[in-house]
Amino acid sequence: MIQNWKERFSEDCKNFEGYPIGKTLKLLSDPEIISLAGGLPSPDVFQKSGLRNAVTKILGPETIDRVMQYSAIPGESSLIHAVMNFLKRDGINVCEDNVLITTSGQHGLDLAGRLFLNPGDLVMVDRPTFAGAFVAFGLNRPEYIGVDIEDDGSNVNAFRQKLEEIKKSEGKFPKFIYVVPDFQNPTGITMSLEKREKLLDLSYEYDIPVIEDSPYRDLRYKGEMIPSIFSLDQKREGTNVIGLYTFSKIFCPGMRVGFNIGPAEVIKKMCNIKEGNILNTPKLNQDICCAFLNDMGLEEHLEKSRNYYREKLNLFLETMDQYFPPETGVSWTKPEGGLFLWATLPKHIDTDELFYEAIKYKVAFVAGWQFYGEDPSTNNMRINFSYCSKDQLEEAVKRLSKCIKEQL
Amino acid sequence: MIQNWKERFSEDCKNFEGYPIGKTLKLLSDPEIISLAGGLPSPDVFQKSGLRNAVTKILGPETIDRVMQYSAIPGESSLIHAVMNFLKRDGINVCEDNVLITTSGQHGLDLAGRLFLNPGDLVMVDRPTFAGAFVAFGLNRPEYIGVDIEDDGSNVNAFRQKLEEIKKSEGKFPKFIYVVPDFQNPTGITMSLEKREKLLDLSYEYDIPVIEDSPYRDLRYKGEMIPSIFSLDQKREGTNVIGLYTFSKIFCPGMRVGFNIGPAEVIKKMCNIKEGNILNTPKLNQDICCAFLNDMGLEEHLEKSRNYYREKLNLFLETMDQYFPPETGVSWTKPEGGLFLWATLPKHIDTDELFYEAIKYKVAFVAGWQFYGEDPSTNNMRINFSYCSKDQLEEAVKRLSKCIKEQL
Repeated sequence: MIQNWKERFSEDCKNFEGYPIGKTLKLLSDPEIISLAGGLPSPDVFQKSGLRNAVTKILGPETIDRVMQYSAIPGESSLIHAVMNFLKRDGINVCEDNVLITTSGQHGLDLAGRLFLNPGDLVMVDRPTFAGAFVAFGLNRPEYIGVDIEDDGSNVNAFRQKLEEIKKSEGKFPKFIYVVPDFQNPTGITMSLEKREKLLDLSYEYDIPVIEDSPYRDLRYKGEMIPSIFSLDQKREGTNVIGLYTFSKIFCPGMRVGFNIGPAEVIKKMCNIKEGNILNTPKLNQDICCAFLNDMGLEEHLEKSRNYYREKLNLFLETMDQYFPPETGVSWTKPEGGLFLWATLPKHIDTDELFYEAIKYKVAFVAGWQFYGEDPSTNNMRINFSYCSKDQLEEAVKRLSKCIKEQL
Repeated sequence: MIQNWKERFSEDCKNFEGYPIGKTLKLLSDPEIISLAGGLPSPDVFQKSGLRNAVTKILGPETIDRVMQYSAIPGESSLIHAVMNFLKRDGINVCEDNVLITTSGQHGLDLAGRLFLNPGDLVMVDRPTFAGAFVAFGLNRPEYIGVDIEDDGSNVNAFRQKLEEIKKSEGKFPKFIYVVPDFQNPTGITMSLEKREKLLDLSYEYDIPVIEDSPYRDLRYKGEMIPSIFSLDQKREGTNVIGLYTFSKIFCPGMRVGFNIGPAEVIKKMCNIKEGNILNTPKLNQDICCAFLNDMGLEEHLEKSRNYYREKLNLFLETMDQYFPPETGVSWTKPEGGLFLWATLPKHIDTDELFYEAIKYKVAFVAGWQFYGEDPSTNNMRINFSYCSKDQLEEAVKRLSKCIKEQL
C-alpha cells in the first residue's frame, strides 16, 4: 500500500502550497466578521438581468447544441472579436492571432509562467505585487528580483540598476518583468506615464519582455486614464509586451473567463499549453462574456461601477482619516481606482500576528507578507474596499482602529 | 525589439505542440466531409430542457449573487456530495476530502501529470492509449513505457516483466501506471476483471500508483459492468488508485467540469496546484452538473444514451462487416461501450497518408500514430461512431472502403 505520497510528488509541486490567502480566508467563516480580506467585486454592480437575458438567448434552439459541445481551443471567434473591439477603445489594435481566451486571469498567469519559466529562472517584480502571480509562477519554482514600489509605480531606475549589475557580472537575466500598472494589487498604486515609457526603454535596451497584468484598468474613479504599456509599445515595435486581462472585476468573477494578448508566436504557444492543460474554455461562459461586451451597455455599466466604487473608496479614506490621525503612525495609499489599498503600520507591529488579533475584533484583512516573493515586509496590510457595504466599511475601520490602538 | 521568442520558452514548452489531433481537425471544415475523427458525444442525447430549467433556477434571485462571485477552489460542496452519491451507485465510497472538482477531464490529467512528473520520469501505459493523456503529461516531458494492449485490456504480464527488468537493473521505476479500463480511447477495449485485480497486485507489489481514467464508464451498451479498479482497491487498502472522471461524455462537454478522486493527501495537493493554475471552477457550470446528477433523471438519461449509442454502434459494426470482408485484411475491435473503435489495416498502409487520401473521399478518421507515446504503429485508425447520424455512418463506411480498396 502506498503511504509515502509526498516523496512521489514532482520537484515543482513537492513544497507548493498554493495561495497563502486561501488558508487565512478559512478562518473567516464567522458571519460577524467584517472581511476586508478578499478581492471580491460587489454583487451590487453585477448585471443580473443582463446575465439572465444573455443565457436565455445563448440556450435558444439554434445555439444550444453548440453550447453543450466542445468548442475551439483559442476561444470563440465572436468573443475574440468583441475583445478586439474592447481593446480598441483603449488604443490597442490586435488581430485574432494576438488573442487567447483564458479560463480566468489566474489561468492567464499560469500560461505565462509555464511558457517562460524553468526552475531557478528569475522574474523581476515590484515589492509588493499580486500574490496570485507568485502562486501561478511558483509552480515553476522561479526566483524573484524585487524592487520596492514607489508612489508612482515601479522603481524603474532600480530595475535598471539591477539589470546593469547582472550584465556586469554576466549573470542570468530575468525572463520577464511582471507589473500591474493600474491600481496595483495589493497597493492600489498606479504607474505614471513617464515610468511606463521608461520601463519600455528598459525592456528594449535589455531585451526583456514585460508582462502587464490589467484586471482593474477600467475601474478608475479619479484622474485621467494613462495609456497601457501594451498600447505604448504598439507605438514602438509592438513586440515586447504581453497583456493579461480578466472579466472578473469588470463583469463578474463567476464566469472564469479572461484573455491574454501578445505576439502571435507567444499566443500560439500559450494555446498549445492550454490544449494540454484544460482544452477549451466553456462556450457558455464565453458567450455570456461576449454578450457582456456587446449587449449589456458596456460603457454605462462601467460608469455605474466606477460611481459605485468611488463612493466606497471616498468613504473608506475619510473614515481612515478620522480613526487613524497622524500620531498613530499608520499611513495608507490613496488609490485612484481598483479594489485595494495598502496600509503601513509602525515597524514593530507584525500584521501576520495582528490578523489573528483582528479576528477577535471581528474584522479581517490580508497580512502584507503574502505579497512578496522574497524578504517580506511585516508591517503592512492589504485592505479591500469594494465588497462590504458602506456601513460595514465604517464599522470595520472602527474595529481595526480599536485593535491596532491596543497594539500601539 | 524581441524577435527570438522561442529561445525564451521554458524547457517544458519549447517543443510542446499540444494535440496533434487539433491540427488535423482544422482540415475538416468542408461540410461535405463526414468526420469519424472527433470524440464528440451526440447532441441528440443532450438534456437541453434539463439544462434550461436548471439554469433558470440557478440564476434565481436567491442564488445569482453567489453564482457570479468567486467560489471555493476544491469545488461546490453540493456538487462534491452529488458526486459522492454518483460514485456510490458504482461501489465507490469516498469522503469530501477525496474529491476535487476539476475544470474538465483534461484538467484532471494536467493536475495528475503536474503533481507527479519531473522531466525524464517514466509513465507506464497501454499501446495505444488516450492521446490527451500524452498531451497533458507531455507538459512535464516524461518518457513512456508502453506495452501493446490485448483484447481484454492491458497486458499486465508484460507490465510486470518490464517492472521486474527495471528492478533487476536498479533503474528508475515509473511514477504511475495510466489506464482507461472501460471502452478505452482509442481502441474501445475493456479490461477484464481478472486483469484489473492483477494490475492492483502489481501496484501493491511494486508500490506504483494506478491512474484510472473513466470518461466512458457509464456508456456500456452490451455485457456486464466490471467493477472499477478504484472500487476493487477499496476492498484492499484503498490507497493505490487515483480516479479521473468528467461530465463531458455522460452529460455534455460544454460545461468543462470533471472530478478527480483519490487519497486525501493527493487531492489536497492537486487542489493547491489548481489554486495556482485556475483558481475555482465556475460555480454556474458546477451547479448545472449538480442538477444533472440530482434533478434530470440520471438513470433514465443514461439508459436513453446507451440505447441511442448502442444502435449506432451495431449499425456501424454491421456496415463494416458488409464493406470490409475478411479478404480486405482490415480488422477492427468490437467495443461494448464508449465512443470509439480501432481499425487495423494491412501493414503497408500508412494511415497518416491515408488520412489525406480519405479527405478527398470526404471522410475522416484519426490516424493511429497519435495514440502512442513512443514508436507508433502506422496502420491503425481511430473511428468515432457516436456523433454522426446513422445515414452518415453508413455513407462514411462506404467512402472509407472505396478509399482503402484503392490502396490495396
